[in-house]
Amino acid sequence: MASERQHPRDTGTGISRRSLLGRTAAVAAGATALTTTAAGTASAAATRDVDVVIVGAGLAGLTAARDLVAAGKTVAVLEARGRVGGRVLNLSLANGGVTEGGGEFIGPTQDRIKALADSLGVATFTTYNTGNNLLYKDGKKTPYATDGVLGSVPPIDVAGLANAAIVQASLDDMAKTVPVDAPWTAAKAAEWDRQTFETWLRANAVVPSAKFLLDVACTSIFSAEPRELSLLFVLFYIAAAGNESNVGTLERLTETAGGAQESRFVGGSQQVPIKLAATLGDRVVLSAPVRSVAKSGSKYVVTADGVTVTAKKVVVAVPPPLAARISYDPLLPAARDQLTQRLPMASVGKAIAIYDTPFWRADGLNGQVVSDTGVVSSTFDNSPPDTSYGALMGFIEADEMRAYDAASEADVKAAVLKDYVTYFGAKAASPSSFVLQRWNNEAFTRGGPVSIAAPGVLTQYGPSLREPVGGIHWAGTETSIHWMGFMDGAVRSGERVAREVLAVL
Amino acid sequence: MASERQHPRDTGTGISRRSLLGRTAAVAAGATALTTTAAGTASAAATRDVDVVIVGAGLAGLTAARDLVAAGKTVAVLEARGRVGGRVLNLSLANGGVTEGGGEFIGPTQDRIKALADSLGVATFTTYNTGNNLLYKDGKKTPYATDGVLGSVPPIDVAGLANAAIVQASLDDMAKTVPVDAPWTAAKAAEWDRQTFETWLRANAVVPSAKFLLDVACTSIFSAEPRELSLLFVLFYIAAAGNESNVGTLERLTETAGGAQESRFVGGSQQVPIKLAATLGDRVVLSAPVRSVAKSGSKYVVTADGVTVTAKKVVVAVPPPLAARISYDPLLPAARDQLTQRLPMASVGKAIAIYDTPFWRADGLNGQVVSDTGVVSSTFDNSPPDTSYGALMGFIEADEMRAYDAASEADVKAAVLKDYVTYFGAKAASPSSFVLQRWNNEAFTRGGPVSIAAPGVLTQYGPSLREPVGGIHWAGTETSIHWMGFMDGAVRSGERVAREVLAVL
Repeated sequence: MASERQHPRDTGTGISRRSLLGRTAAVAAGATALTTTAAGTASAAATRDVDVVIVGAGLAGLTAARDLVAAGKTVAVLEARGRVGGRVLNLSLANGGVTEGGGEFIGPTQDRIKALADSLGVATFTTYNTGNNLLYKDGKKTPYATDGVLGSVPPIDVAGLANAAIVQASLDDMAKTVPVDAPWTAAKAAEWDRQTFETWLRANAVVPSAKFLLDVACTSIFSAEPRELSLLFVLFYIAAAGNESNVGTLERLTETAGGAQESRFVGGSQQVPIKLAATLGDRVVLSAPVRSVAKSGSKYVVTADGVTVTAKKVVVAVPPPLAARISYDPLLPAARDQLTQRLPMASVGKAIAIYDTPFWRADGLNGQVVSDTGVVSSTFDNSPPDTSYGALMGFIEADEMRAYDAASEADVKAAVLKDYVTYFGAKAASPSSFVLQRWNNEAFTRGGPVSIAAPGVLTQYGPSLREPVGGIHWAGTETSIHWMGFMDGAVRSGERVAREVLAVL
Repeated sequence: MASERQHPRDTGTGISRRSLLGRTAAVAAGATALTTTAAGTASAAATRDVDVVIVGAGLAGLTAARDLVAAGKTVAVLEARGRVGGRVLNLSLANGGVTEGGGEFIGPTQDRIKALADSLGVATFTTYNTGNNLLYKDGKKTPYATDGVLGSVPPIDVAGLANAAIVQASLDDMAKTVPVDAPWTAAKAAEWDRQTFETWLRANAVVPSAKFLLDVACTSIFSAEPRELSLLFVLFYIAAAGNESNVGTLERLTETAGGAQESRFVGGSQQVPIKLAATLGDRVVLSAPVRSVAKSGSKYVVTADGVTVTAKKVVVAVPPPLAARISYDPLLPAARDQLTQRLPMASVGKAIAIYDTPFWRADGLNGQVVSDTGVVSSTFDNSPPDTSYGALMGFIEADEMRAYDAASEADVKAAVLKDYVTYFGAKAASPSSFVLQRWNNEAFTRGGPVSIAAPGVLTQYGPSLREPVGGIHWAGTETSIHWMGFMDGAVRSGERVAREVLAVL
C-alpha cells in the first residue's frame, strides 16, 4: 500500500520532480536548497534575494508566483513538502492509474481554477452521475433518482423533506445577507456568531430525518460536526460558494450535477499545481519548511530548512494554524496571532478502493451514497473517464476521521470495505488495491479540507484574515471571499494577494 | 513607563537574575546557553544530557523540576523568556514597590500553591476588602456591602437578583456532575458541549440585569465572552475551582473573601517562581525558546535557541497553543495536534495606577468595581500591605482587551484613567505612575490568563490534554483537574507530571 501513496511526480505529462526542480538531479532526502536565482543563474550558496518570497507551493502560492512573475517580479516559493500542491494530491495506483487524495472536484462559478486549468491544458470531465443515488439509513438501502436540474430528493418521510426544504431555504436566505468580504458586518452577525450551527439546527431542523440530512450535509461540506461551527461561519461559507455575480447556495455546495462536485480533472487534480509549478521552474524550492520570518531593515529574511531568502515582500500561503507555527520578528499583532489560534483545521481523510470495473453501475447506481452510519458516510464514483477500472472514493469525516486517526491502515481499510460492501454488495469486499489519505496525520496540513471557525471568531478576528502586517501578506483558500475551502478559493486568493503586493511593490 | 515594565529580577529578597542563573555573570541579550550540568560541572559546549528536560519555567515546569530533582533525577528547564514565572510576573514600580502583571491571587482550596509558597517562605496577606464594592451601571454608581460569609449582593432589581441566584445555583448543580478528571464523560457532556455559554445564558439568565451579572462574571473569570466558550468547558472550570474533597462553585471563582481573590503574596506573586527557580540553580536556562523535540534512539533531542539538551523524557509545560509551535519528530498524534489548534488563549491585560495613598478607602470603598462600561470593568485595590502607597488594579478583558491590543500605551492609560475617575473620582486622574501588562502582545504567551475551549473541543479532544506521547509528557495549568487557569493548577500539574514521569523513568 505504501508504494501507492503520495507520489509527487507527474503521472501523465512527462514532467518529473527533477525537471520541476530544474538542476537538482540529486535531491537530498532532507532539506532541499536550490541555489539558483529566479533568473536561472546557479550559485553555491543556499540563499536567494528576490522581490517576493512565497511560503507554500499550494495553488494559492503558485498562482501568486505566476502573477508576480508575469508582472516582472523576482520570486521564490518555499514549500515544506517534497512536492507541490498542498491539499491537492495525486495518488498513483498499482494499475498505473491515478486518483486524488485531496481536493478533486470543480463546479459552476469556480471560474478561477477553471481558467487556470484551461491555461495549463488540464481538461475536465463530468463526475460520473448516471443512475441512482443510494440512501442508507436505519439499516435500509433505498436508491433514489438524481436530477441535474432540481437536485436530488432523498427518500425520507414527507415531514422531514418539508422541514429540510424550509431549513435549506432559510440558510440560503440568511446567507444572502452576509457580505462575503466582511461577514462580521452582516446585520445579524452578532446573533449568528454567538451560537453553534448545532444550536440553530436543533431549533429549526426539528424533524429527525431533516436533522439527519442537514448533519450529513454539514459533515460532507466542512468535515466538521455542527457543534464545532459558528452559524455565521456556515452562512458565510454558503454565501461564498459562488462568484462575483452569483451568491452561493447550500445546494451548490452539496450537489454533483450543477454543484461543487460536477466535474473532475483529467489526470488528477494535482496536474494543475504540478503544471503551474513547472512554469515557475526553479523558483520553487521543495523540502524547505519555513521556520521564521524576520524583518531586517527594509527587507524580510525568511529562513527555511536549508535555504534563506531575503525579499521585499512576503506572502504566507499556508493554512492559518500552520502560519501560526512560523516565528515572526517583529511579533505579529495580537489580533492576527489570536486569529490563527482560532481557525483549526477540520478532520478529513479519503479512502479509494480500486476494482477491475465500476460494477455498481450495472446495478443502476452512480456510486454516491448518503449514510447514517459507518466510517464512510459519503461516497463517489472516482473511476477514470475511460472506465478502464472502477474506483469507489469515500470521505472519512469529522468524528469518524478522529476515531480512525491513530488506527492502522489495515484497520481503516477493513472498516471502509465493510461499509462499501454494505452499500454496494459483496463485490466491494475485494478491491485490487486500496489507497488512503489521512490529512490529520500530515505534518504540513494537520487536518482538512479547511480551517473552521467556532462562535465568536469571525466577529472578533475576521478583519485579520487578509489584513497585511507590514510587508507580510496572507493567502490560501481560507482568505478567499469566493469558494473558501475549495481549489477555486485558493487560486482566487493567489490572484488577490499578487494584486495586493504589486500595488505596494 | 518602559523602565517600570517586566523586571525579571527579584524585588525584595536579594536574589538577582545573575545568581538565579549561577555562573552566567554576563548573560547575552540573545540566546543564553548555560553550560553546566545539573550537578554543577561547567563545560564549554551548549549541550546537556539529563534525565528529564522541561520546556517552560513557569510554575508548572519549575514545580516538576523540583520534584524530579528531589527524586534524584537530573533535569534541565528551558525557558524562552529572560525570566522565570510565565504568566506570573512582578512589575517594579518607580517608587520602589512592586505589583503584579499576571496571576496574583490565592484563595481557599488552592492548597498546592499555598504549600509551595510556604516551603519557600513567601507569605500571604489578605486582599484589601474593607468597605463597599461599587456597581457602575447605566451611568450610575451604587456602593454595596460585601459580606465574607454569604458573598456580596449587587444592588440590581429583585427580579434580576432572583434570576441570577437561580442561574448560579443551576451552574453549580450542573458543575457538580462534571468529573474534573474527564469532563467529557459527564452524563450530559454531549448536550453541554454542543452549545455556547451564551446560548445557555440567553435561555436561562432571562432578566437583563441577571444576564449582565453573569456576563461580567464570565469575562472576569475567563477573560472571554460567553459566546467563545462551550457550556461544558464553563461547568468544568467551575467544578475545578476546588480541591480533591471540595468541588468548586461559581462563587468561589468570583469572590474575594472566601474566594479565589482572597489573598495575595508579600513581595508579589513572582516571588514564588523566582525563589523556586533559585533552588534549581543553573538547571534553569533562560532565553532559550525551544524549537524542536525529536526522538533519537531511546532519547529525545530538544533544541532551543543556543542550547541543545538530550534527555530520556520531555515535559512540555507551556500553554497548548504555544506547544503547537514546537516542531515534533515523529509527528504528534492527530488528536493531540488538533487539540492544540483548538485551545486558544483568552485576551487579558492588567493596568495598575499608583497613587500616594489608597484615597478611595477614605470614601468607604474597597476598590472593587463591577461596571457595565469602560475598558476596565473590574478593579481591585492592589496596594501593598503596609499601605505605603495606593494601587488600583484593573483587568482589561476579552472584547475590551482586543480593542486595545494595538493601541499605544498612552491611549490605554488615558482610557483606563478615565474609567478610574468615573469610579473613584477626580483624584484618580493623576497617578504617580502607571504600569500596563498586555498578555496578548507577549511572544511566549499571546493571550491569557488561560486557554479556552469552544463547543466540541472537550468531548472530541479532551483525553489528549494529559495523555503522554511516547516520552513526552504535558503540564501547565491547562492540564490541571483542580484550579485550571490558576497558579494552583500550574503547581498541581507540575506535581502530577513529575509523578507521571517518575513512574516510567
